[in-house]
Amino acid sequence: MRILVLGGDGYLGWPTALHLSARGHDVTVVDNFARRNWDDELGSHSLTPIRSLQERVVAWHAISGRSIHVAIGDLCDATFLEPLIRSTLPETVVHFGEQRSAPYSMIDRRHAVFTQQNNVVGTLNLLYAIAEHAPDCHLVKLGTMGEYGTPNIDIEEGYITIEHRGRRDTLPYPKQPGSWYHASKVHDSTNMLLACRIWGLRATDLNQGVVYGVETPETTLDERLCTRFDYDGVFGTALNRFLVQAVVGMPLTVYGRGGQTRGFLDIRDTLACVELAILNPAERGEMRVFNQFTEQFNVAGLAEAVQGAARQFGIEAQIEHLPNPRVEREEHYYQAANTRLLDLGLQPHMLSDTLLESVMQLVMRHRDLVRPALIMPAVNWRKTHNPASVSDIAPVGASS
Amino acid sequence: MRILVLGGDGYLGWPTALHLSARGHDVTVVDNFARRNWDDELGSHSLTPIRSLQERVVAWHAISGRSIHVAIGDLCDATFLEPLIRSTLPETVVHFGEQRSAPYSMIDRRHAVFTQQNNVVGTLNLLYAIAEHAPDCHLVKLGTMGEYGTPNIDIEEGYITIEHRGRRDTLPYPKQPGSWYHASKVHDSTNMLLACRIWGLRATDLNQGVVYGVETPETTLDERLCTRFDYDGVFGTALNRFLVQAVVGMPLTVYGRGGQTRGFLDIRDTLACVELAILNPAERGEMRVFNQFTEQFNVAGLAEAVQGAARQFGIEAQIEHLPNPRVEREEHYYQAANTRLLDLGLQPHMLSDTLLESVMQLVMRHRDLVRPALIMPAVNWRKTHNPASVSDIAPVGASS
Repeated sequence: MRILVLGGDGYLGWPTALHLSARGHDVTVVDNFARRNWDDELGSHSLTPIRSLQERVVAWHAISGRSIHVAIGDLCDATFLEPLIRSTLPETVVHFGEQRSAPYSMIDRRHAVFTQQNNVVGTLNLLYAIAEHAPDCHLVKLGTMGEYGTPNIDIEEGYITIEHRGRRDTLPYPKQPGSWYHASKVHDSTNMLLACRIWGLRATDLNQGVVYGVETPETTLDERLCTRFDYDGVFGTALNRFLVQAVVGMPLTVYGRGGQTRGFLDIRDTLACVELAILNPAERGEMRVFNQFTEQFNVAGLAEAVQGAARQFGIEAQIEHLPNPRVEREEHYYQAANTRLLDLGLQPHMLSDTLLESVMQLVMRHRDLVRPALIMPAVNWRKTHNPASVSDIAPVGASS
Repeated sequence: MRILVLGGDGYLGWPTALHLSARGHDVTVVDNFARRNWDDELGSHSLTPIRSLQERVVAWHAISGRSIHVAIGDLCDATFLEPLIRSTLPETVVHFGEQRSAPYSMIDRRHAVFTQQNNVVGTLNLLYAIAEHAPDCHLVKLGTMGEYGTPNIDIEEGYITIEHRGRRDTLPYPKQPGSWYHASKVHDSTNMLLACRIWGLRATDLNQGVVYGVETPETTLDERLCTRFDYDGVFGTALNRFLVQAVVGMPLTVYGRGGQTRGFLDIRDTLACVELAILNPAERGEMRVFNQFTEQFNVAGLAEAVQGAARQFGIEAQIEHLPNPRVEREEHYYQAANTRLLDLGLQPHMLSDTLLESVMQLVMRHRDLVRPALIMPAVNWRKTHNPASVSDIAPVGASS
């Protein structure tokens, strides 16, 4: 199958491209290296040393004999995207090509506007290009479980049947995103539903949970194929932060009370879910939503799990509660459906001490590269100006 | 009260600015003349001859002795908007400053992207400027009843209490916008709710129905104060189109079966609703939604009402059903709540033959100015390329 992987140089995009190439698909990676630029901006880095996209593709060819094509450009640039779709006529587009960090979007007005513009316009351009040149193409788009927020009722998969004043309808599930980034994904979902309705496109929105893990069957074939590991306060997840903090002897910093519950999944399950969506495409006119996670955890529970794993290596990690830099409920009901991918055959990898220990070993291997200044939260939701990196100069007249 | 009226040179913005100035408020009109530019682009015009903003303000001062201040600039330009909010410190911002035509947003990719970028970025910039410089300011933002689409359950005012699997929560009402324009308003609503939650802003989202009528107590004081009357296929409403068609002897063109039901209100009620929202502001942290319409009609019913009004002037208008250029349900349930503004004291003007006849007289006064070529639908929802005006050259390679 001819597949474009948008954002195919990123944390999940690259392993997905490898995985689909290994399965025999004709894969083209599309990227503009925005993620690498944000490292430059923030003074951050991947703890795992990642190679250039060109080196990655050469290494993959040497190892597997398979070619991954590359197209470098910005989805917001229609003069790049439209001829790309017209000339490649993809059967599937897997769309990871968005700014994916909530804290990055909350740095200040400029970063908020950038995130929404980049994500919304890129996806709008894509919807038009598909409608014009490849209307039968299946769009597999990465959304986020964060679109739903933390409602006091069960979270369903994209839609909910509501009985109201004696009538009934199945409607898009109400969304309560908690950052400009999460809101951008809600905007995308709204736009995709409209495009499927008016043009008969086919789309699957993968509302993904928090992904953990670094290694996949393909990335471990050669060190040149490894993917990113982010642990900084802007792009790193809480779990990665805890693992690095344990290894370098810092306390594990839980934001607020730590009762924040979210859905999680193993990076290998991300690949499996994307593949299941591709092999079982949406119908023409259908905008399908899958909740893509395998287990629910709260932040305090994750910290305790890391504490336990660290003990296996003789590390006694402390847990410290910080004032929460985010605006979010710290104790709340959370029960989200995730049966649609299981029904398609997903065999989940559960978060176990084994996985935590293997990632902790990887962190220990690279512990000399850890930059402790990157770990603490850099972005406060309540402020309209946040320094984007430790070297930033506060804007003159920053009032909050 | 210090009030900014964003988009204060437009169809509703200008009468609102006049009305608030007449009530003794200190009014500043903010506009970038985008609406006048779109006329230039489309070859369209207001049937009523409108004056420049500068002439309008001079005339108003001559007639009322009151000053309306003017600030010319683009809300998407933060270097304009931020110092404006900082220097004027408004107590209320009334935000009409968006691209408001569904067909305009559906012309092609460029117009879709422009609409979403213009509306979403302008409002995001505004939210940041208010949070930074005037956090107690009440934002009164124009939304649209079109955010809800046509669900098979009653439409509530912004939020709905859902009972689901034995639990209950009040959540944002599910949205099903039918155009990129309507979607942009949904995006705005999502962003405003987030801003109120994280920064404690106060906002009222006025989900307005279709407005009819041209004259208000202030605009009729002098012909130089009149506001726009749009009848073209892009910016005109169905009712205005029918009135003009009757006057020039064309059949009244109903899109599809004509069972499309929407909420409507008189332009004088728009002014009253905005004023009620201003005088009864939202609380800090509250994102309040009012459904702003007074009556529901379907399109076929409107055509018949115009047919009846035309008969008073000896005109026998025919009704013709066109293939619907939009993608929408043509027969559907529609029952929307609108009690919150009534509870604040709104005294609605109902659509009666009297109103239709007075607008028809206005059209007859200007019938020599009518350009029949503008009246027919120019934009088809199913196409990704539509000529924006009768003189447009179709893009090379336009495939659908």
